[in-house]
Amino acid sequence: MELEGKVVVAQGGGPTAVINQSLVGAVLESRKFRQVTKVYGAVNGVAGIINEDFLDLTQETTHNLEQVAITPSSALFSTRDKPDKKYCQEIFKVFIAHNVRYFFYIGGNDSADTVRIVNEEAETAGYEFRAIHIPKTIDNDLLMNDHTPGYPSAAKFVAQAFIGLNLDNRALPGVHIGVVMGRHAGFLTAASSIAQKYPDDGPHLIYIPERTFNIDKFLMDVKKTYDKYGRCLIAVSEGVMDENKVPIVTKLIDSGTDAHGNKQLSGTGALGDLLADQIKNKLGIQRVRSDTLGYLQRSFMGCVSSVDQHEAREVGEKAAQFAIWHNVDGSITINRTGYYSVDYKLTDLKNIAANTRLMPDEFINAEGNNVTEAFKYYLQPLLGSDMPEASMLRAPRAKKILNP
Amino acid sequence: MELEGKVVVAQGGGPTAVINQSLVGAVLESRKFRQVTKVYGAVNGVAGIINEDFLDLTQETTHNLEQVAITPSSALFSTRDKPDKKYCQEIFKVFIAHNVRYFFYIGGNDSADTVRIVNEEAETAGYEFRAIHIPKTIDNDLLMNDHTPGYPSAAKFVAQAFIGLNLDNRALPGVHIGVVMGRHAGFLTAASSIAQKYPDDGPHLIYIPERTFNIDKFLMDVKKTYDKYGRCLIAVSEGVMDENKVPIVTKLIDSGTDAHGNKQLSGTGALGDLLADQIKNKLGIQRVRSDTLGYLQRSFMGCVSSVDQHEAREVGEKAAQFAIWHNVDGSITINRTGYYSVDYKLTDLKNIAANTRLMPDEFINAEGNNVTEAFKYYLQPLLGSDMPEASMLRAPRAKKILNP
Repeated sequence: MELEGKVVVAQGGGPTAVINQSLVGAVLESRKFRQVTKVYGAVNGVAGIINEDFLDLTQETTHNLEQVAITPSSALFSTRDKPDKKYCQEIFKVFIAHNVRYFFYIGGNDSADTVRIVNEEAETAGYEFRAIHIPKTIDNDLLMNDHTPGYPSAAKFVAQAFIGLNLDNRALPGVHIGVVMGRHAGFLTAASSIAQKYPDDGPHLIYIPERTFNIDKFLMDVKKTYDKYGRCLIAVSEGVMDENKVPIVTKLIDSGTDAHGNKQLSGTGALGDLLADQIKNKLGIQRVRSDTLGYLQRSFMGCVSSVDQHEAREVGEKAAQFAIWHNVDGSITINRTGYYSVDYKLTDLKNIAANTRLMPDEFINAEGNNVTEAFKYYLQPLLGSDMPEASMLRAPRAKKILNP
Repeated sequence: MELEGKVVVAQGGGPTAVINQSLVGAVLESRKFRQVTKVYGAVNGVAGIINEDFLDLTQETTHNLEQVAITPSSALFSTRDKPDKKYCQEIFKVFIAHNVRYFFYIGGNDSADTVRIVNEEAETAGYEFRAIHIPKTIDNDLLMNDHTPGYPSAAKFVAQAFIGLNLDNRALPGVHIGVVMGRHAGFLTAASSIAQKYPDDGPHLIYIPERTFNIDKFLMDVKKTYDKYGRCLIAVSEGVMDENKVPIVTKLIDSGTDAHGNKQLSGTGALGDLLADQIKNKLGIQRVRSDTLGYLQRSFMGCVSSVDQHEAREVGEKAAQFAIWHNVDGSITINRTGYYSVDYKLTDLKNIAANTRLMPDEFINAEGNNVTEAFKYYLQPLLGSDMPEASMLRAPRAKKILNP
């Protein structure tokens, strides 16, 4: 028998360039089913649910939904609330009151965990209810997934940024450091490697949290590169850590902690400035600059991978199809089936919740300061159809006359 | 009689997204004239000239030139050398040895000054020679120009960045500061105003070097905005100064000076972090983040205004036409003739050299913390045909049941 009731869609955690595609995919697909009485969007994630703060997306125009789909960041706004059991019981109360029978939560592994607990509450109470986690994270760190929606577009932004930084660094040589988001996983920082087109192209050095960051080794690497090319472009994850797993940046800054107990690594230029100072002072190189790519990586308007757009839409659609047609729970996963093709499956929520996937060893070079071609082969198709490329002049040198 | 000899093209100062369009415009146009024996590109600007370090661009393929044209940064590389009279005499020696009769220098007001001195040397020596300055600067601060090539694309980047930051700041509220390039002129920072689409959109506050920056007034502005919207997005020029013309950032950091005697304002996240600390400590707001847009503003691959592309190409072409057909010297200027149409003229080099244009008063609001509609009307057509736009959900709120 068909399970009649409302759908609630919500967005959690950090925004991405395509999280609204998943929202719109889930909403448009849900609106097709006759057993769906209304499609609600919870404002500010789970916080909007316990406050009964819903937009009635059944009354949103299709045109505006399509416009929102190509707009970055979370159109339903987000939250950093990480519900415990009690919070989830509050959610469940609201769901019963509004006869919500389907819940789609777009987010990372914290959001998957929320979905898991809400589902448990429903089961305990014998309330018939389907909840699906729709994956999203620019960090690309969910288990069971070849990659996650949001990552390809953020990777494209990082790649385009480093293509530019490499050209800039060649035009006006020196050392340039680009700090990229990533607390635990280096996938996003590794995307900078796409800028390595010509033999002397940077980033010449790439540091990720999967490998211990040693400041002396770092300085030696920089010196070696600078001696060879007369310049050096570096990509470094904000989360690089020393041998005791202490983030390099926390050795310097005294900052607050966020609601998840994480040290604040984003929204400050401290790591880049610290590393630049080290290079200036210890290597005596004069022109040292750093850029912290910051929030632009996840919300920049107009830098989106076409593959990411389509996949983010599809995982939203699939969530509605799995829950409403097939009456099953879980987390949608992206599985690579060819080069390049994917398929979507459903996995148990506990496989995703509160876990983190790191870069596999085969993607990292032996020295731990760059990526391998295996990584580039993995990333390339995710960047989509319109990835721009830089070109250099190839004209021959003219003969000198005064000082031949 | 036709003046037979070589053409030298060079690029100076900071790269832009379209400086290679001007290069390719000048090269392709110059290659059409029979009196042009060769077209050389000086490697690393004027430094390449005194080292006789030239690429023979007569031997570059048209396809590769077109690929280079759509690549950001300076394909001939750049220099911060600011030649004095002696340096210019060295340049002139090389020009005579290679029978260089045409010199096109793409750059800002420092480059215009170089062209002016080289021209003087040629005149003194009775050497028949044409030199033209091709304008370029993301700062938009050259006199006699409606705007300068490079600015529209950098402005588009800043606008797209702030559209994203505004959405991000709405999804996860707090105070967010975006630091934009600009030592003296606020045009680039002002471009952030394009993100103001819906009534509560940020940036809510825009601070530019043309107005004195007072930290207490700043904090009052932030508090007022935060109280009203529950969030606050701020755009601030790296070069904002106090009432004694001391850059706010130099009050904090002890950094070196560059070759032009300017304090280093770029390539560091210091200003953003300083202002964030002020807001945290003095207003007690917890979630405060800052992004320093940095070098991405001038070299990001794949964010270009179509208008800027075309105009940058045309000023390069016009330089060749003025010099080789019309046998005249000067600096090319862009003049707005309609909404939107432009024409190119030639002005005396001394009108451009070593001068700086600031934002006119009519572009700045009375409080000095935002821009006017006159500015937006000025900027809009420069952003080109594919400026993306953000959209919000407009669905009605659903009725509450538990706590109506």
